[in-house]
Amino acid sequence: MDEIIKKVIDFRDARDWKQFHNAKDLAISLTLEASELLENFQWKDSERAISTNLDNIQDELADVLIYALLLAHDLDIDVEAAILNKLKKNETKYPVDKFKGSSRKYSEAE
Amino acid sequence: MDEIIKKVIDFRDARDWKQFHNAKDLAISLTLEASELLENFQWKDSERAISTNLDNIQDELADVLIYALLLAHDLDIDVEAAILNKLKKNETKYPVDKFKGSSRKYSEAE
Amino acid sequence: MDEIIKKVIDFRDARDWKQFHNAKDLAISLTLEASELLENFQWKDSERAISTNLDNIQDELADVLIYALLLAHDLDIDVEAAILNKLKKNETKYPVDKFKGSSRKYSEAE
Amino acid sequence: MDEIIKKVIDFRDARDWKQFHNAKDLAISLTLEASELLENFQWKDSERAISTNLDNIQDELADVLIYALLLAHDLDIDVEAAILNKLKKNETKYPVDKFKGSSRKYSEAE
Repeated sequence: MDEIIKKVIDFRDARDWKQFHNAKDLAISLTLEASELLENFQWKDSERAISTNLDNIQDELADVLIYALLLAHDLDIDVEAAILNKLKKNETKYPVDKFKGSSRKYSEAE
Repeated sequence: MDEIIKKVIDFRDARDWKQFHNAKDLAISLTLEASELLENFQWKDSERAISTNLDNIQDELADVLIYALLLAHDLDIDVEAAILNKLKKNETKYPVDKFKGSSRKYSEAE
Repeated sequence: MDEIIKKVIDFRDARDWKQFHNAKDLAISLTLEASELLENFQWKDSERAISTNLDNIQDELADVLIYALLLAHDLDIDVEAAILNKLKKNETKYPVDKFKGSSRKYSEAE
Repeated sequence: MDEIIKKVIDFRDARDWKQFHNAKDLAISLTLEASELLENFQWKDSERAISTNLDNIQDELADVLIYALLLAHDLDIDVEAAILNKLKKNETKYPVDKFKGSSRKYSEAE
């Protein structure tokens, strides 16, 4: 992962673009890219979206990840540690013995 | 990266949750998590948001990444290859000699 | 519509909250509320979402509209005129004789 | 408001597009339009966004409202009643005597 993060940061540094970035606008950009990804599924079920738009889905997913990595880097967040830490919290929240095969997380009212 | 992806998938498989997942709902979830991340910046500038909400920002960013990795896995997208491929497209779109230090990408009307 | 807009603005003015509002954060808030509305449909089809979450859907839709009306008011946008103007543009883009009953808008790749 | 809702519905009915609409995809579309509105504020403060992109902001705000009205119509939600009902809930949550001039709602951690 370190190598890929380095390439994302190098891309920005080669263009001297850090000066235009701030965490709030990076978080906005992440939302916008997530929407562009979702747009591929608008008016379609998953299967149709994948068969029609897979290349674009891949590109938009990459954009989401690029902004996520930029934001993490600027905030000194170690993404691997952050993911592991969140998985541990989720394990406490959804213990295997109570949630295995259960749709509760997926069926309850919000 | 492979190891972290394996842990994300293992978390899901231990609960047998793949049966509830489909690409469209994963893309929706990614958008919702990106919004929860952005919520930390609502009514605040970057500095205030970071000083007040850094722990939550880290958790929400992890959620974004977890859904991105799940979606990529289900669609057989290699995230590292997807990022490198997108960086290459961006290099063609924003060549260093024309965009170094330029705010054009950041100032033009949408 | 004027009366309902007045009530939304009166609610804000009674609390002296205009000082905290700016167009960018209102646009962020609109996105966040739209996500909270969408959350009611996460992991569900339309029918299930409506039968389970209709009250919450109504509240979140109201929040979307409230932020939309606040933003329009602050930018001196006449919402009725804006809607009519946009419908007119859409009529040119999607003429009845070419799009009646056609799923083209809904089936083409993004 | 009734008249404007009628025009929005008439636009759809003239094209026989109701058959392609369902509540979940309308909620997705609302999110996508809210993001397109927000895109006008990306990398910019409110003032710059307004001076550069006001026409587009107006169009995207109209799109948000159009999808909100379509969704409300399909779910038999009376938008004026929904807004008044939500304002009443907000009045209980944020009573004037405790929140007048207070930035608490705007400064607390999420």
